[in-house]
Amino acid sequence: MSEFDLIARYLSRPAAAGRSDVVVGNGDDCAVLALSPGQQLAVSVDTSVVDIHFPHDAPPAAIGHRALAVALSDLAAMGARARWCCLALTLPAADPAWLEAFADGFRELAERSGCELVGGDVTRGALTIGVTVHGEVPAGQALRRRGAREGDLVAVTGYPGRAAAGLARWQQGERDPRHPLLEAYLRPEPRLAAGEAMRGLATSAIDISDGLLADLQHLLSASGVGARLDLEALPLATPLRATLELDDVRQRVLNGGDDYELLVTVAAADLAEAQRRLAPLHLPLTPIGRIVDAEGIHGIDPCYLERQGWNHFPEVLS
Amino acid sequence: MSEFDLIARYLSRPAAAGRSDVVVGNGDDCAVLALSPGQQLAVSVDTSVVDIHFPHDAPPAAIGHRALAVALSDLAAMGARARWCCLALTLPAADPAWLEAFADGFRELAERSGCELVGGDVTRGALTIGVTVHGEVPAGQALRRRGAREGDLVAVTGYPGRAAAGLARWQQGERDPRHPLLEAYLRPEPRLAAGEAMRGLATSAIDISDGLLADLQHLLSASGVGARLDLEALPLATPLRATLELDDVRQRVLNGGDDYELLVTVAAADLAEAQRRLAPLHLPLTPIGRIVDAEGIHGIDPCYLERQGWNHFPEVLS
Repeated sequence: MSEFDLIARYLSRPAAAGRSDVVVGNGDDCAVLALSPGQQLAVSVDTSVVDIHFPHDAPPAAIGHRALAVALSDLAAMGARARWCCLALTLPAADPAWLEAFADGFRELAERSGCELVGGDVTRGALTIGVTVHGEVPAGQALRRRGAREGDLVAVTGYPGRAAAGLARWQQGERDPRHPLLEAYLRPEPRLAAGEAMRGLATSAIDISDGLLADLQHLLSASGVGARLDLEALPLATPLRATLELDDVRQRVLNGGDDYELLVTVAAADLAEAQRRLAPLHLPLTPIGRIVDAEGIHGIDPCYLERQGWNHFPEVLS
Repeated sequence: MSEFDLIARYLSRPAAAGRSDVVVGNGDDCAVLALSPGQQLAVSVDTSVVDIHFPHDAPPAAIGHRALAVALSDLAAMGARARWCCLALTLPAADPAWLEAFADGFRELAERSGCELVGGDVTRGALTIGVTVHGEVPAGQALRRRGAREGDLVAVTGYPGRAAAGLARWQQGERDPRHPLLEAYLRPEPRLAAGEAMRGLATSAIDISDGLLADLQHLLSASGVGARLDLEALPLATPLRATLELDDVRQRVLNGGDDYELLVTVAAADLAEAQRRLAPLHLPLTPIGRIVDAEGIHGIDPCYLERQGWNHFPEVLS
């Protein structure tokens, strides 16, 4: 059994389920893929490392799900449709039960997203999951971080902050996978359909991986603008409000990472249309502020701005 | 400075060198890429882990070169032209001098191969380098592992076995990077131009990463055939013949990995044309046997068949 067979054994679907866009799938030196006419290729790679991006004792199905979800979320943020993925798996040991559960979590999301696993490799080492995702987006229609204009509304999908609270619960020993906050952390849902729905409407977009403020700042920097947020307008998830003080809830919403909601800007006149497009997805889109000319994030207490985002290499900050 | 800035700082070229096929490059949620008309997308991912795929004390420029070379070699084996790559870098620490040398090695090969770095991420952990490469191949012209037919010649580019001997030298303490065997191990040259030249001519192809016999067996299994090799016909590199007994040289040639030469099958009548196409590359193409109906590898002493290839997870062999 080759290294690739190890992935294939746990992750491949029957050949009967093959798709015409996969000219060569698993098992050759490369996958060969056919893009649809008029489409451009969107590509992103994300690496999930044990005890950095997820706890070592997280359920293996959740580890598989999350590793793919965080990569798919980048396609969502570009308005791309998921098509193909590659998995580079580094494992400390070949534990069939762990691998099978991991694969179940990965595969379930891959199939539901239309994202066919077409390649990968397996090596031995500390548990590290590298996922490259490929999507299609009509030529010229990719959503960008840049493009936000003064006067646009800043809006966010869903209820960010739940995942960070879920991770805190996990660290406190909560293990019920149906706990709504734990679920938000362990099984984030990439907003692929929402991203596609925002094509031609959002003036800019980013997904929230590091935290709402940190990712908003990335979008603002790319667009060369600032934003004034309305603290009262933040969407507050019920399970957060039920258990935390308001300040703590807002701290989670603004600085908690790992939710993979989308942050978009839209012209004020387009908000209703944007919300209408997301309604069939049962996904609220909440305006939380407005783009302004002055760079930076305004309108909120500086205490919320202190812990923005995540940096693996603080020593290279200069 | 974000995680991506860390890569960008060391690996990005000036924006002025941007290419029209890179619609969105570094710095957004995804890269967006435009395939040329009539082309299909070839994709492969390769992970290089410290002390498994390369020694921890290898020169960082060689580590960068090799990590990309082993991935590009998969494009070569499909006859694809290199276009874009993504780098997922896991580092134990952000050492600017190490990173700069690593990036020099990676970038030099990337630029020379026309393979633009369009995305990636950086995380902290044991040194692991994940490279996803993307190439283009005219629709329907990808070289496959399957396709070898009874009577075809089996032929190999260059002089395999040098890299394995080079690694052995490294482990014995040799450190002169200009040593020809060390060079073969530390800076393997992906056979991209040779792969393109074999389009429409080779009936099957694979690159030699695990060892000539191991990879030949992959090709034979995919094609449902066998091969009879001619031990006397093996190309023997001068620096190997100068230092090892003939049996040891053959052992290196047949079972040494890491050379990234191409192994192809061609109709006997096409050998001269194949050699003619590779002549401008100064790359010999040596026929070493013939495809036969009986499965397996014939014509060589069983002692050479005992140590085929590389398996990270022997416990899952069954």
